[in-house]
Amino acid sequence: MNETIQLLRNHRSIRKYKNIDVPEAHLQEIILAAQAAASSSNIQAYSVVAVRDPQRKQRLSELSGNQKQILESPVFLIWCADLNKIRKAVRLHEDIELKQNVEMLLLSTVDAVLAAQNATVAAESLGYGTVYIGGIRNNPQEVTDLLELPQLVYPVFGLCVGVPDQEPDIRPRFPLAAVYHQETYSEDALEKGIHTYDEITSHYYATRKGGGAGGERETTWSREMLRKFERENQRDHMHDFLLGRGFELK
Amino acid sequence: MNETIQLLRNHRSIRKYKNIDVPEAHLQEIILAAQAAASSSNIQAYSVVAVRDPQRKQRLSELSGNQKQILESPVFLIWCADLNKIRKAVRLHEDIELKQNVEMLLLSTVDAVLAAQNATVAAESLGYGTVYIGGIRNNPQEVTDLLELPQLVYPVFGLCVGVPDQEPDIRPRFPLAAVYHQETYSEDALEKGIHTYDEITSHYYATRKGGGAGGERETTWSREMLRKFERENQRDHMHDFLLGRGFELK
Repeated sequence: MNETIQLLRNHRSIRKYKNIDVPEAHLQEIILAAQAAASSSNIQAYSVVAVRDPQRKQRLSELSGNQKQILESPVFLIWCADLNKIRKAVRLHEDIELKQNVEMLLLSTVDAVLAAQNATVAAESLGYGTVYIGGIRNNPQEVTDLLELPQLVYPVFGLCVGVPDQEPDIRPRFPLAAVYHQETYSEDALEKGIHTYDEITSHYYATRKGGGAGGERETTWSREMLRKFERENQRDHMHDFLLGRGFELK
Repeated sequence: MNETIQLLRNHRSIRKYKNIDVPEAHLQEIILAAQAAASSSNIQAYSVVAVRDPQRKQRLSELSGNQKQILESPVFLIWCADLNKIRKAVRLHEDIELKQNVEMLLLSTVDAVLAAQNATVAAESLGYGTVYIGGIRNNPQEVTDLLELPQLVYPVFGLCVGVPDQEPDIRPRFPLAAVYHQETYSEDALEKGIHTYDEITSHYYATRKGGGAGGERETTWSREMLRKFERENQRDHMHDFLLGRGFELK
């Protein structure tokens, strides 16, 4: 296993940070690495907003379900799908509107995520810890206002970056055979994999140390999925929010 | 710049491969690295199908706009957003349907992309080259049939992996200041950035060697965006396709 693969395999989400800054030079190195990720037809349809201001981080923390790691981390990066950029480029040449559909939403979301994951890898290679915050989609309009995002830009997720002050266990992942299919998708492999993974996670949840919500608990992965997805509101507001920002879902 | 960041910065899409296999052990190492990526609440809502069979690759190549790199690469990975997995997990415990909305589409798409980008980094660290193939969304239903993907699974993109037989120039990226905003989004920085980037890409397109579509051409980034997005059909079929597979866009 080479050094890079070791780094990737060693990933865990970090939710407690030391009171140490991320120097601007490091942050720029991280974002330049993000920019090197592939982009569909080089559209680069994403942006990132870095927030260091404590008051703004406080507000973002509240908007994301009071996640205190946002406050604790010296820098909070908000990765945005950005079609404003493409609209501006096109309109330099022709007075036309950029057509919207669900494909455009996917194109820009994919670009943002590819870049963000490179940023995560780069940050970890520099000794920082990170955690993605999907919670910024709890109140996406308020986040949009706070960051002054124009139409056709939406916040996909946040990323806390800082010096780790914890070393949580690495979370066990699905058995390879339940994720990796050969030639065609195997429902059978998936079903077996879920059972195996439930056994593995039963042990993990019962004994894990540090990080994550909940600490030691008696549960399994599939039970956690039930717990998460039986709830009513799974961010149903995203539909109206995206339409309000100029995206279309047709 | 450390070794990992050098690797990330050195990325370029590879479209020509040597006639050398990717051993199964390497492929598994790549996919294990992909699995180590973060996943929202550990839902791991993605799968990957590896295609090595020449006839299946041939068909996938045709369905993706005759991209011959799919044929040339020894293995073609199709990264899928997968809510079938979650549905199965939930239904182990309760006879309920997994609620669908655009947020669920985003959750699963994000998970697939985070994993895929880790796979790309791992593959490159082992000396392989890769290229993402968004073209599999040209005919997503046919791809779905060919790979026997169940309901609630859709192919986000493909990824060719193989030993590079070309060394294209690294494509210049947007000026940092037009991607990286501090505290709030700056339309001004973006507009300046587009102009600067047009100057940079004008030189790049005029002189570039290898890879990419087109070779040497007189154009700029913003003109390329016009050329791409003024066309009528931007995969408008994705809406009906996703609905047909059980996703919802409400």
